[in-house]
Amino acid sequence: MTRIDIPEDSLFGLGNLPYGVFSTPGTPPRAGVRVADTVVDLTFVDDVFAAPCLNPFMAQGHARWVEVRARILDLVSGDVPDAAVHPVDSVTLHMPFEVADYVDFYASEHHASNLGRLFRPGSEPLMPNWKHLPVGYHGRAGTVVPSGTDIVRPTGQRKGEAAPTFGGSRRLDIEAEVGFVVGTPSPLGSPVGADDFGERVFGAVLVNDWSARDIQAWEYVPLGPFLGKSFATSISPWVVPLLALDAARVATPPQTPE
Amino acid sequence: MTRIDIPEDSLFGLGNLPYGVFSTPGTPPRAGVRVADTVVDLTFVDDVFAAPCLNPFMAQGHARWVEVRARILDLVSGDVPDAAVHPVDSVTLHMPFEVADYVDFYASEHHASNLGRLFRPGSEPLMPNWKHLPVGYHGRAGTVVPSGTDIVRPTGQRKGEAAPTFGGSRRLDIEAEVGFVVGTPSPLGSPVGADDFGERVFGAVLVNDWSARDIQAWEYVPLGPFLGKSFATSISPWVVPLLALDAARVATPPQTPE
Repeated sequence: MTRIDIPEDSLFGLGNLPYGVFSTPGTPPRAGVRVADTVVDLTFVDDVFAAPCLNPFMAQGHARWVEVRARILDLVSGDVPDAAVHPVDSVTLHMPFEVADYVDFYASEHHASNLGRLFRPGSEPLMPNWKHLPVGYHGRAGTVVPSGTDIVRPTGQRKGEAAPTFGGSRRLDIEAEVGFVVGTPSPLGSPVGADDFGERVFGAVLVNDWSARDIQAWEYVPLGPFLGKSFATSISPWVVPLLALDAARVATPPQTPE
Repeated sequence: MTRIDIPEDSLFGLGNLPYGVFSTPGTPPRAGVRVADTVVDLTFVDDVFAAPCLNPFMAQGHARWVEVRARILDLVSGDVPDAAVHPVDSVTLHMPFEVADYVDFYASEHHASNLGRLFRPGSEPLMPNWKHLPVGYHGRAGTVVPSGTDIVRPTGQRKGEAAPTFGGSRRLDIEAEVGFVVGTPSPLGSPVGADDFGERVFGAVLVNDWSARDIQAWEYVPLGPFLGKSFATSISPWVVPLLALDAARVATPPQTPE
């Protein structure tokens, strides 16, 4: 049995317990939880974690997420079977879930204003709709990859003087974003209220939606970002459960929606 | 055994042979082929058709599509086992495949010009990029449904005089489109050439991407269509193999890309 040592300053203490999907040499991908610099194999907790992605567990819904989190906390704060314990640098991390749909909102007023100045110099940076509704677009679900995956610089058309030119993007950009992972579906045609956020959303990941700004600037009118953002989107391999964030709540900056 | 009678004027003759997914009362969804007004159960041809969607078959690639199409033609033009034969009005049709990503291009100059006049009255209807590249956006894969599924009129924000109003869409629109179903994936970062179209694309469906024009007109700047087109997209339950279209080729109208 192993007792996991958690340094005082670890970002992966008992209040976090993020989920991921990992494999070791010669074994299939399965779900694990990270504690300090250790990955604990969750198939020792429940068979649902033998799947190569978290989707089957997420689909079981909020009550199960609460119950299983308590069982995981119980396991990792005591003696853990040796066979369940892997140093994090000995495992390969995979996509933690299959992405069904992926929506990118630009919800920061500062960011939206900066992009407005970038793409529409000389005009009002925020569009009239921005303060009334969350403006977003669908990204390409099939190109979401776990952090660490090599990204190929995309080629495409870039706006030119007389005509567009074709070649590798010269204005690759990065964006630090937070992604929310919806765990349970809703029936077609039924709205989900904002109050149901905590019931439906399983957890959060870090996101970088890589952007080829030159390709985007030429192609995005009027139907929005497409190839300029569809070559790759990186996410953290660890999904922090929404339940872990309750203890970390702070007041947000005041907002002035209209 | 059954010999299928195909009327002279049937749209579902031996040159078509579209694939679908069907069930009969008390049986699980599986793949079938339509011949005249008959659905033939394809599990009599190959086990891959026992899946509730065409994805496993599509993933087997172009050479298999050719080979299996020949076997299906052989089966349905001769005596078919009675247990494989179902009148089309006795079956329930389902989504024929799982949608991983869904991209909507506006490839018709007339349509793109009409929409430009609708959304940007008084300015040049076609954007400068339109004649240089195919302009498209990602749709919501999770709301693609087979034709016949009831669609709920969406509610949302509509542009108002002083401020937006909220309510049911007043400007629901329909669009008759052709959808191409990509059968086999490509590695991340590797481009697929236009010449590979016939190898990669499994077939075609009819598409109606329902549009709530009032919701779209308010929300779509600058990131493109979102909720105004994300409530539902209907497709025909029958996927016509690309192989069936070879015999139907006609010259297209001349195009003047720049």
